[in-house]
Amino acid sequence: MDVIVVESIYLLVIVTLISVLQNAFFALKVEKECNRQNVNTSAFERVSCANRNCMDAYPTFLAVMWCAGLCLSQAPAAFAGIIYLVVRQKYFVGYMGQTSQSTPGYLFGKRILGFLFLMCVVGIFSYLLIRHYGNDHKEYVEIITKAASTLLLIP
Amino acid sequence: MDVIVVESIYLLVIVTLISVLQNAFFALKVEKECNRQNVNTSAFERVSCANRNCMDAYPTFLAVMWCAGLCLSQAPAAFAGIIYLVVRQKYFVGYMGQTSQSTPGYLFGKRILGFLFLMCVVGIFSYLLIRHYGNDHKEYVEIITKAASTLLLIP
Amino acid sequence: MDVIVVESIYLLVIVTLISVLQNAFFALKVEKECNRQNVNTSAFERVSCANRNCMDAYPTFLAVMWCAGLCLSQAPAAFAGIIYLVVRQKYFVGYMGQTSQSTPGYLFGKRILGFLFLMCVVGIFSYLLIRHYGNDHKEYVEIITKAASTLLLIP
Repeated sequence: MDVIVVESIYLLVIVTLISVLQNAFFALKVEKECNRQNVNTSAFERVSCANRNCMDAYPTFLAVMWCAGLCLSQAPAAFAGIIYLVVRQKYFVGYMGQTSQSTPGYLFGKRILGFLFLMCVVGIFSYLLIRHYGNDHKEYVEIITKAASTLLLIP
Repeated sequence: MDVIVVESIYLLVIVTLISVLQNAFFALKVEKECNRQNVNTSAFERVSCANRNCMDAYPTFLAVMWCAGLCLSQAPAAFAGIIYLVVRQKYFVGYMGQTSQSTPGYLFGKRILGFLFLMCVVGIFSYLLIRHYGNDHKEYVEIITKAASTLLLIP
Repeated sequence: MDVIVVESIYLLVIVTLISVLQNAFFALKVEKECNRQNVNTSAFERVSCANRNCMDAYPTFLAVMWCAGLCLSQAPAAFAGIIYLVVRQKYFVGYMGQTSQSTPGYLFGKRILGFLFLMCVVGIFSYLLIRHYGNDHKEYVEIITKAASTLLLIP
């Protein structure tokens, strides 16, 4: 593939690769708990449930991150992706360490997915503006974009 | 990313965003049922099962829709995607309302996924025809394509 | 979509379509076991679990295969994808035939996913080398790439 295409996606690819490594880490944890001789059912159920919740959200995360990266700009999308992976790691480790009475909820990383979603909407909106009104709105859209990307810095 | 690339995918991105919103709606339903004080096990199992069945089919749907949109043309692919989302919504709501004796089956939206699959095959086939035999077959292929896209209108 | 873009992804699209067909085959098996009159719980659990394990790994597989195909070259990525599908078929059939005491593990196709992962890393690395040091390293990178692609031939 030519270098021009790779240039506009390589950060997204790197984040995807890191997420794949994390998936492998999760799967190995499940595999290890599966193969243990005297199975601790509660521990196995916890790790399996944590893995499943992470996997359920994974296609959604990938789709939103790639759309945001392609439609708007890849650096903030990849940055948000990295933060999402950190949150997911914390969620998984926290899930495993909990007693079964107080597991964390089903959802995690809502704020980051919301930010990526917003990036997509801004990207599509900016594309439609440029297409229908020409380039005079472009600076205006870029100001909105940058204002949106600072949302990530709020703790 | 330059505007030319966004032009050929923006409808697909919009459908993907709507599907992400729907996923979030499903996940919130599961979360709500999880956090309820006196857990109604049967209701929780139903909503969790419906969510899982939808999530199992989600990567397949995304892959087929994007391939169909990239290989053939994005408008019919996005239209079929919207219809799939409507069917999925109906399936989820129907699943939650059922008693456990008569749940709907595991599969849904078969006809729409089949249509998107057909679009991919036609797109690949048309690309190979054009590559090997030149452009004289192009009109013929476009007639086939349009005939295929009318299949969606059959109730 | 123009023919130039389709040229660099059509093998990946074909492998994706085959994987979708395989998903449909798995889902039909689950559906069939679901609808049977006198449900054999153990058989249903086995086929449902095999399907779930396959579906859990599916987004990871798609992401790695597409990244490898886009970043490096599509022919070896599609070839590895085909082999992964064969391994997955064997895993599913093997899982269904087993007694519940000796099910295969949670993971499968580790070597192939590892190879695709390596392809992505090599592709990104080669892109960064070309970007920072110019094209004089290109032949060197291509030698690495070919050495990596022979890894698949090891039985």
